[in-house]
Formats: sequence, structure tokens, C-alpha cells
Amino acid sequence: MLAAMKCQHTLHHAQGHRGWDNTNAPRLSIAPGESIEFQALDASDGQLNPQSVADDLSRLDFARVNPVVGPVYIDGAAPGDVIKVTLLDFTPSGWGWTGNIPGFGLLAEEFPAPHLHHWHYDVTSRTPALYGPGGRVPLKPMCGTIGLAPAEAGHHSIVPPRRVGGNMDIRDLAAGTELYLPVEVAGGLFSLGDAHAAQGDGEICGTAIETACSIAAKFELIKNTPLATPRFTTPGPVSRHLDGAGYEVTTGIGPDLMVAARDALRNMIDVLSAQHGMAAIDAYMLCSVCGDLRISEIVDMPNWVVSFYFPRVVFG
Amino acid sequence: MLAAMKCQHTLHHAQGHRGWDNTNAPRLSIAPGESIEFQALDASDGQLNPQSVADDLSRLDFARVNPVVGPVYIDGAAPGDVIKVTLLDFTPSGWGWTGNIPGFGLLAEEFPAPHLHHWHYDVTSRTPALYGPGGRVPLKPMCGTIGLAPAEAGHHSIVPPRRVGGNMDIRDLAAGTELYLPVEVAGGLFSLGDAHAAQGDGEICGTAIETACSIAAKFELIKNTPLATPRFTTPGPVSRHLDGAGYEVTTGIGPDLMVAARDALRNMIDVLSAQHGMAAIDAYMLCSVCGDLRISEIVDMPNWVVSFYFPRVVFG
Repeated sequence: MLAAMKCQHTLHHAQGHRGWDNTNAPRLSIAPGESIEFQALDASDGQLNPQSVADDLSRLDFARVNPVVGPVYIDGAAPGDVIKVTLLDFTPSGWGWTGNIPGFGLLAEEFPAPHLHHWHYDVTSRTPALYGPGGRVPLKPMCGTIGLAPAEAGHHSIVPPRRVGGNMDIRDLAAGTELYLPVEVAGGLFSLGDAHAAQGDGEICGTAIETACSIAAKFELIKNTPLATPRFTTPGPVSRHLDGAGYEVTTGIGPDLMVAARDALRNMIDVLSAQHGMAAIDAYMLCSVCGDLRISEIVDMPNWVVSFYFPRVVFG
Repeated sequence: MLAAMKCQHTLHHAQGHRGWDNTNAPRLSIAPGESIEFQALDASDGQLNPQSVADDLSRLDFARVNPVVGPVYIDGAAPGDVIKVTLLDFTPSGWGWTGNIPGFGLLAEEFPAPHLHHWHYDVTSRTPALYGPGGRVPLKPMCGTIGLAPAEAGHHSIVPPRRVGGNMDIRDLAAGTELYLPVEVAGGLFSLGDAHAAQGDGEICGTAIETACSIAAKFELIKNTPLATPRFTTPGPVSRHLDGAGYEVTTGIGPDLMVAARDALRNMIDVLSAQHGMAAIDAYMLCSVCGDLRISEIVDMPNWVVSFYFPRVVFG
């Protein structure tokens, strides 16, 4: 919590909102250069707890899902500017969940039943967390939902990401990363939430290791700078927490990237099931928290190659 | 060349073919467990040389492009089996080229003119290779085209990859990787070619550091094993040759993965142009040899996030 203790401000989870709306009243106004500790609930908004079971996923109040803390008004920010957010520190709670939520996820049609895994991990050491059906997953806490209010009037669902960011679920929005967001409204109206103790590229089942988390971030303002969509800089490698033993990789090959992504994932589920005697649903959910979807080739007409990379250290 | 010298066989570049056809006569028959050194020309089939200029790209005889060495008949291989190929060693020539070929590449419409870069690198030390417009690219030689003959009769273009492999252009088909290919015809009829001294995930301009290369590989046969598409295992990390200084990352956000991939790439070209005073065409071609397309999020309906990762060490 050292970095968080250096913050000038703290926002608690009740100081938040659900969905984006540029008429949401700011919870806090800050000057550029200041930093904030955000105390964010997990993506269920506390509806799930360590005693929850799979059927609780079917009973979730989806109007409450994926709450964010904010909005924060950054003094002087105006449309056409960029807000730079430096992610200083993540302190996750020590418990998290991964859910297969009916109707949600890359293979939603193949896995229609709710399924829930609990994760317990050491907050201080962050040693790889045990997965019940087998394996251990290295942790790298990151922020799933982070962004600004859109210029377009009205209430906008929290689920899809947009030009101003939001639910981008990018694995490497982690400690040390500098994120640049395009401002569309006065003050920017920044919010964040949806922390993950670990997530793979793609977040393929739709959830990662969903966890409550304290997140410390610093804000700077860059005036009059065109930016089409969010970009970020990582200060160092992004995969060394899990790449030491190499990867098992499967492919999907064809003219449609979405179909190829599904094929690559299905093939990996088959590999993990065969190698580790794991049920398909368990392999699917494990892939979501630590496996990566990559576009290996996108030019050799008419067939593209999407690959799914699974880190061997999980079973190493 | 040590690994290559341990091979039982050598196939020279003239012992090859253009396009896949399961009636191509084998150049060599081997028993499972044997290894071969393949002496492969670059993807231009030697039509380009260190004195070539951009206009030579427009004069390429495309019927000769992307030659492969082979086919090799693996004794006992039959449809339903898997051939395991262990890539033992790559010895590239020391010279390579990257071309923007009109009509080819992820942003072909935006970059219609031919453009050519030459690369000269040290074969022994493999220190990062100097890029004329700026930067140095760490090398990791790999095999762009590697696969078996398809069951379907007739001549099949070398350009697209298929279920049996082929022009997959996967960055991590490099030294140490074990590749598994599904057999569709007796003997498998294995061929390879199209070596790259370096390539990023996506191979976004359509070419990488195209180079002539000696490639040593060992072959094993796994009987009666279902395999939908190629898969592979890497013995260790896949990005440590270039990840030390972290990444600049841009995003494309929207409901179509192809459009999002193009947007992420365009945004990176803008970043590199702004940060390094680089012409857009030069940034585009640099991205192809060392930057990676990743699917960050593919579940937050209706908008997906494709990210382009550029390794900062290139300008470090």
C-alpha cells in the first residue's frame, strides 16, 4: 500500500457509478500531477463472495455488474486533450473468482452452464495461485475497466470499450504502465474498476481472476494532442511472470479472424484436456486467466492464422 | 552450422517446388528420427539481391515467389498421423530484405508504391540489425513456410496457409520449437522455405526480414493421432530477444477484428512517425519485422480490442 499511501486522495467503492454518462457528477476534482487511491470492488459489485456457488452467477443483478469508481474531474482537461494515467500500484484482496456466465464469452454456445472457480492467493508474495482442477497461475494484477466519459449524451453500457477507453480488458494495464486517453468532455471524467489478479490476452471466457483491489494512479494533462484511441507504454517486459517455461500453442487458420480465434481456443482446450485430464469447462476458464490470443499472420490471403499461447509454467 | 552438420541429409534449394501438389515427386525419403539440413533461398527465389531497388519488386515473377525445399517422404506416415518437426538450427545468410509489394499487406491500399529495405547483419553474433531510417531490430530467425501436402488434388498456391500448415508465418517457429503437423497423404510430403531473420506477430506489411537460410530439422512420426490444425511447443520464452525495454502499444476498438487490427497498426505508424521523425512507409515496414498484433479483448460485446505492441528496445 506504500504507493497508495502517497496519494493525495482516496475514493471508496461507494463513490462510483454504473455505466458511462457525462452528466454523472464528479466525485472528486484534482489538479494535474495529483494521484488517487481507488478502492474498487470486484466486477460482481460484491454480489459474489468466497461462499458463492455456480448458480449464484445466474442470479446476478446485471445492472450492478462492473461498477467503476469515479468520475474524477481533472482541472483544465478539455476535448482534444489527452489525460495520461500512470498506474502506480495494485493491492488485490487475496480472493478472486472466475465465472462462466451463460451467454457471455468466446465459446458461449459450447459452454451454456454457469461455472464458478474461487482463487485464494497471497497478497504480499503474489506467488502463483492454485487452480483447483490443476495448475498454478502467476499473478499480475491489472485494471479491466479504465476510461473517460464519452461526449455522446445519455447512459452507455459499461460492457463495451469505446474510443475513450472503458472496459478494454487489456492484460498489460498493470503497475508501471502509462496510459494515454483522449478527452471528449470537460474534465475528462475519469473512472476505473474491474480489477483482475491475472488475465490473458483476449479474456476469452469473459472473466479473469475478478478481484477487489486498491489501485493507485497519477494523472497528468497533455493539452491539444490528437489521439484516436487509447495507447500505453510499458516500462519493461509484459510476460516474464509466466513465460519462463515457454508455451503450448494451437492455431486457427482461415479467412475470418473471429472463427480462427475460436478454432485456436477450441484446439487448446483439447490439448489441455488431453495432457492434464481436465474437463473442457475447466480448461476454458483456465485459458481465460493466463492464455494469450495472438494474430500470427494477417496478410497471406485469403487465410489468416490466429494462435492461442498457453504458458507451460502453469503445469511446470 | 553445428546442428546442420549433424543431419543425415541435405536438400539444396534447387530440390524444391512452387505451390503444393500431392503428386510432386519426393526429393528424399527418410525414416522417422532422421534429420535434414534444408538450404532455402529467400522468398524472392533469389530474384532480389543486395543491389536491388524498389522497382525490382514490381518486376518480380510471382510464379517463382516463396519457393520451398522438398517434398520429403517420411516412411510410414499415413492420413490420420502426426509428423513432429523439431527445428534444430537456423543459419541465415547475413543479408535480407523487407519489401512493400503493391497490393499485398494489411494496409495495401494506403501504401500502393513499392518500397524496399536492405538489412545486413552479423551471422555469428546476431546483434540487432540496423534499420536505415532508424532503430535496430533484434534477430530471431524463423521459418515462414512449413507444412505438408494437402489431400485435395491439384496445384495449390503457396500463399495461403492451410490445415496442413504451409505459409503460416508464425514468429515463434524458431530454433528449439517442436511443431506438430496433421498428415493428409502417404509420407506427409513435407517442405519448408521462406525464412525470416526477424518477424513480428501478424507480418503486417506482408514481408519480414526475408533471408536465405540453412535450416536443420528433425522428424518424428506419431501414429493415429487426431489433430485439427498445426500446434507447437516452445522450449522457453518467445519474446526475450526484444522485450527488455517494454513496449509502446496502440489500440483499435470496434466490432470487427480486421478493422480493429488496421486501426491499431495505423495508430502505431502515427506514434513512430511522431516520435522518431520516420516516414509512414518506413514505420509500416519496421512494424512488420518486430511489432506484434495481439487480441487484448474479444468478449465485451459488441466491441473488441486489438493491440499493436512495438518493442521500445528498437530505439533504446
